[in-house]
Amino acid sequence: MRLILPIVCLLLASTIHAAEAPPLQRATLGDLQLESGEILRGANITYRTAGTLNADRSNAVLFPTWFTGTAEQLFAFDATGLVDTSRFFLIAVDALANGASSSPSNSSQQPGLDFPTVTIADMVNAQHRMLTDILDIAHLHAVIGISMGGMQTFEWITAYPDFMDKAVSIVGAPRLAPYDLLLWNTQLAALELAERCDCQQEDALAVAGLLNLLAIQTPEYLAREFPRERTDELVQQGRAGGAAMNIHDRAAQLRSMLAHDVSDSYGGAMEQAAEAVIADLLVVTSLQDRAVSPEPALEFAELADADVIELENDCGHMALFCAPPETRAEISGFLEQP
Amino acid sequence: MRLILPIVCLLLASTIHAAEAPPLQRATLGDLQLESGEILRGANITYRTAGTLNADRSNAVLFPTWFTGTAEQLFAFDATGLVDTSRFFLIAVDALANGASSSPSNSSQQPGLDFPTVTIADMVNAQHRMLTDILDIAHLHAVIGISMGGMQTFEWITAYPDFMDKAVSIVGAPRLAPYDLLLWNTQLAALELAERCDCQQEDALAVAGLLNLLAIQTPEYLAREFPRERTDELVQQGRAGGAAMNIHDRAAQLRSMLAHDVSDSYGGAMEQAAEAVIADLLVVTSLQDRAVSPEPALEFAELADADVIELENDCGHMALFCAPPETRAEISGFLEQP
Repeated sequence: MRLILPIVCLLLASTIHAAEAPPLQRATLGDLQLESGEILRGANITYRTAGTLNADRSNAVLFPTWFTGTAEQLFAFDATGLVDTSRFFLIAVDALANGASSSPSNSSQQPGLDFPTVTIADMVNAQHRMLTDILDIAHLHAVIGISMGGMQTFEWITAYPDFMDKAVSIVGAPRLAPYDLLLWNTQLAALELAERCDCQQEDALAVAGLLNLLAIQTPEYLAREFPRERTDELVQQGRAGGAAMNIHDRAAQLRSMLAHDVSDSYGGAMEQAAEAVIADLLVVTSLQDRAVSPEPALEFAELADADVIELENDCGHMALFCAPPETRAEISGFLEQP
Repeated sequence: MRLILPIVCLLLASTIHAAEAPPLQRATLGDLQLESGEILRGANITYRTAGTLNADRSNAVLFPTWFTGTAEQLFAFDATGLVDTSRFFLIAVDALANGASSSPSNSSQQPGLDFPTVTIADMVNAQHRMLTDILDIAHLHAVIGISMGGMQTFEWITAYPDFMDKAVSIVGAPRLAPYDLLLWNTQLAALELAERCDCQQEDALAVAGLLNLLAIQTPEYLAREFPRERTDELVQQGRAGGAAMNIHDRAAQLRSMLAHDVSDSYGGAMEQAAEAVIADLLVVTSLQDRAVSPEPALEFAELADADVIELENDCGHMALFCAPPETRAEISGFLEQP
């Protein structure tokens, strides 16, 4: 039963009662130049912090959000527990288009379909602006992220290689594998069906939620936790999970993940992207992950001579939440090494 | 490259040029009582035969179709090649709601959403009527089926245990596993979105086609055959695959698979269903199958003391089409044993 709560919570983001999340803060960036050449008008980035920034402003750890996730959720799931806030200044940051930072759902100047395409690089560039221009932080101790947060981590270490000492990607990727591309294109196709006609959004989001639930765990996990008689309950959980996010926000983040490829800035050469990395890198993958296949991250890890933790349990993409405490301690320990 | 053709063909059913398929024949059954208590009006079952029925009418082998498939396709894929037609009288039969036998798309009295719910048991009962009333066949040498054809095989051996000497289920199931239930409910949710409003059917079928393509192979297969630069092609294949079938037909067969459980007739006791089997049973599963999980079939095989072939290659649900010739020979040999 131990994973039902996380899965439900992850998918029912809006219903989580996260009493322990620190207050939301907002960095107003003004107009933001995007990779596409378009301008994101009146961009702002929201975040929540824990711990204390030290005198030389050198102990900040940036923790960007996963797909559909919020900084509030990072605390609710105790993902942030990986970072010792007695030592580090934790900045849990909302990725663009997550409904908290600038998003199709909250932009007054470019709402809904008028919101420009944002990439993983745009998310990271906005975070870089927030850190340097607003928070006066010129260097991070570390970047750590899970899933799409891990994708942002790979972008950070290749786009701003000298900006951090350490980096941890957990079930993330420098780019998606072919299977993942098909998976997320399928979810996008379901959303675009309703995005274009501005109709049946609830039903399309239900399909997206079901697809997420299907992708983030394994058949073995479902067989153990959801015997046949609980199928209706399982299906309802999937449908409800989709309802937790605005359709345009969800589609925007899907497009970001689909376009993500850190080798793009290196002429398509992943070897060169990996060679550019300066930070100590820890790559955590799940061998049974069918939401973000482990291979691209493992290949990058080898190219970059990174540390690797390969999780092997039947929780798939959710493997961190099924891993023993020792695994979390190993990740935390990596961040604390001198 | 060897599997691209089957996948494309399976999904682009309507475009297959199957010159070698024998002519379509039609058994007119009249009104058919369904499991639900409803009546299927003017039911008819189509089929294609090869080989010759012997004098004592004892050498017939029934081969029902897979999900979305037709008897024509069974020949086009050489699935029928598993049956030696110099010895056996092969009857490739179109499952209800496949667009050839009575279906939402071709029923004049109960078209579209007026078509009654049909179950796997209804498919089998209709085939039994066809054999006994029309073809004057009182006993089969064997039933053999792939995927939803394998589900019909499990139904045959438990509903009509003394009707055949041998039975082969290939990547089929006596009922779906929890993961499969979530998968096929997801595809159904995408179709129902468009079924209910009678709109955007093409887009909904595209999502269904993408989901099928995602489910029937493995990440390893896609990584090998569809590198990143071929993603658009892959997505187009998935979308086109959905377009090959009428939306109401597809939804009807999905509902059949979701409701399928051969233990229903045995008070929910799968042990009793398995004990009822008289035929020699061969269960062929694929360990990496994520369209029809192998566990329910393997559990039934153990209960029924059946022969088992466990395919282990990276083609997932398509494993038979990647298996070496020896595997096909083993299956054919099972049918030929005295």
